Amino acid sequence: MRRTGWTAVIRGGMLAALVCAAMLGAAAPVAAQGTTQGAAAAVAPVADPLPSWNEGAAKRAILDFVRATTDPAGAGFVPLPDRVATFDQDGTLWVEHPVYTQVLYAFARLRVLAETKPELKQAEPFRTVLSGDRDAIARLPLHALEKILAVTLTGMTVEAFQADVAQWLDTARDARWQRRYTELTYQPMQEVLAHLRANGFRTYIATGGGQDFVRVYAGTVYGIPPEQVVGTAGATSYGYDAAGRPVLTKEPKLLLDDNLAGKPEGIHLMIGRRPHAAFGNSTGDRQMLEYVGAGAGPRLAMLVLHDDAAREYAYGPALGLPDTEVGTFTPQLYEEAGRQGWTVISMKADWKRLFAFEP
Amino acid sequence: MRRTGWTAVIRGGMLAALVCAAMLGAAAPVAAQGTTQGAAAAVAPVADPLPSWNEGAAKRAILDFVRATTDPAGAGFVPLPDRVATFDQDGTLWVEHPVYTQVLYAFARLRVLAETKPELKQAEPFRTVLSGDRDAIARLPLHALEKILAVTLTGMTVEAFQADVAQWLDTARDARWQRRYTELTYQPMQEVLAHLRANGFRTYIATGGGQDFVRVYAGTVYGIPPEQVVGTAGATSYGYDAAGRPVLTKEPKLLLDDNLAGKPEGIHLMIGRRPHAAFGNSTGDRQMLEYVGAGAGPRLAMLVLHDDAAREYAYGPALGLPDTEVGTFTPQLYEEAGRQGWTVISMKADWKRLFAFEP
Repeated sequence: MRRTGWTAVIRGGMLAALVCAAMLGAAAPVAAQGTTQGAAAAVAPVADPLPSWNEGAAKRAILDFVRATTDPAGAGFVPLPDRVATFDQDGTLWVEHPVYTQVLYAFARLRVLAETKPELKQAEPFRTVLSGDRDAIARLPLHALEKILAVTLTGMTVEAFQADVAQWLDTARDARWQRRYTELTYQPMQEVLAHLRANGFRTYIATGGGQDFVRVYAGTVYGIPPEQVVGTAGATSYGYDAAGRPVLTKEPKLLLDDNLAGKPEGIHLMIGRRPHAAFGNSTGDRQMLEYVGAGAGPRLAMLVLHDDAAREYAYGPALGLPDTEVGTFTPQLYEEAGRQGWTVISMKADWKRLFAFEP
Repeated sequence: MRRTGWTAVIRGGMLAALVCAAMLGAAAPVAAQGTTQGAAAAVAPVADPLPSWNEGAAKRAILDFVRATTDPAGAGFVPLPDRVATFDQDGTLWVEHPVYTQVLYAFARLRVLAETKPELKQAEPFRTVLSGDRDAIARLPLHALEKILAVTLTGMTVEAFQADVAQWLDTARDARWQRRYTELTYQPMQEVLAHLRANGFRTYIATGGGQDFVRVYAGTVYGIPPEQVVGTAGATSYGYDAAGRPVLTKEPKLLLDDNLAGKPEGIHLMIGRRPHAAFGNSTGDRQMLEYVGAGAGPRLAMLVLHDDAAREYAYGPALGLPDTEVGTFTPQLYEEAGRQGWTVISMKADWKRLFAFEP
């Protein structure tokens, strides 16, 4: 049996330990570098659609792909309706360490829920999470975390969920940069999204995170509308409120596990055609890149490697980088990238600056 | 437990009886009328976006809705991204009687399958269907039909399925008009699709039929791309073929039952926003119309009533029309339409001509 969404790549209580670290700000802030690089970006020619990228194989691969697919006289021309690109979100479009933003939202929501449902304070695993006992939270088994996600992300109307997520995103700050999570998107990837769209591509998110969660901010943060967010999706149930108005209520039943093999499966379900470009950063994206790469004509498959502890985080364990349970980039994946002709993006070498808020 | 897709509104062996009627051409051809009406359409002013519609409340409702939602100075203006309209397919965009086209495809495919898998000829319920014994087929229980759909529509790659459906659609002919099924689309509804799109609406199909089945022809027949077809969807499984190439295989596991309450649920899953217009023709569309109608601002909700035995079929049982198991329009639905302000389209009174192939 496959595990659910992110939990598929997370073992036991490791996630909980990371959650604690994130909640308590244990990840010490590291002064953002790249001021010089930011200045370099500022003097880049206006015509450069990717000013936050250093010159190199990765930047060249993107520009070459767009040129090849949009040249009507070229052999690689792709008609407009087929110009589809899919992007993993956590770790590819925005920061995923020390832990996924949605898990932090679920923990925050549990604390709010406990105010009106005091029985949660007595029942496990909620009592443990609410206790703030880091060691105990770290020992929580996987099914306990799934129970927390089920309780905190379901049972309300889709509109109530959207409003609650929007409010949390507006007030919560990450421990390292003290910024809204929605500010922690990678400027180089925003430029890729914009460049692809300027050339007729429709950009989709294909995330192991919750489809409804990501939809709340995908429009304002990435310019990606709700119908172009493919994610791990739970069922909703249609019914009527006290006034007899139709409502859709979020249910704790999994419809689509959009991770690993679930990514190409979700792409088929939601899009119904094979994308020409795909971007990821972990083993959860492998099958999506394989699927995209196996199509005819020009295909662009890229993986972001987090090798920049100074400006963001460094994790692999590919290339000897520290191992991680969140966004694992294994040596096997690195090897497959080489074999398949996928481009690995070095955050450290390829990106001039990481965030729009950097000088 | 809800039944699957169409089968939710079909009782027991009734569907099988109808299938037999369709296969054997028992529905006697009726000479298409409306030649005069066709001529009238030809002299309609070019500026009329709905030339196949007679003047009346239904045509007016469509034109008024489009005017209201696209007038930037009006109170009912709808921004471009929110211009979404959903259309049921069977009975709303094309002919569904005497039985759904996809069921005929499944029966045809069973005959082909039996050539390479002779064991099917010995096993029930396949033996019964292959026997051609109308009475025996009519007595098949519901789960037998579901078994037939599972066997015939799964187990192949999505590409193989697409190719097979396309070939069948190209060669099969309906018993009454002796036309390809893809020619049996309603010209008045094609004009509604075009008029909405010309005014910035994105047109989606929301069908109880198979999502992958409808996607095969939605592009050429309706101008609707695969990502805008929401339908009853089965799982696929990602794997590799003998050459190691990634493939998606269709599995006999239901992901989305896109009928009744499943329509708004499917719309939320696939689109993530509430449409401003919805079109249906049966009880299977009720919840979709309720959901669409309950939103703020101008909303258009319409139901096609098949009251034209001469040019197509007549069934209800609303308004005393003959009862049916396929595309049931109950008196309760008719009553709700009046109460909710939905517009009922009378095929007989509102449509000048039905098909593009009519003179």
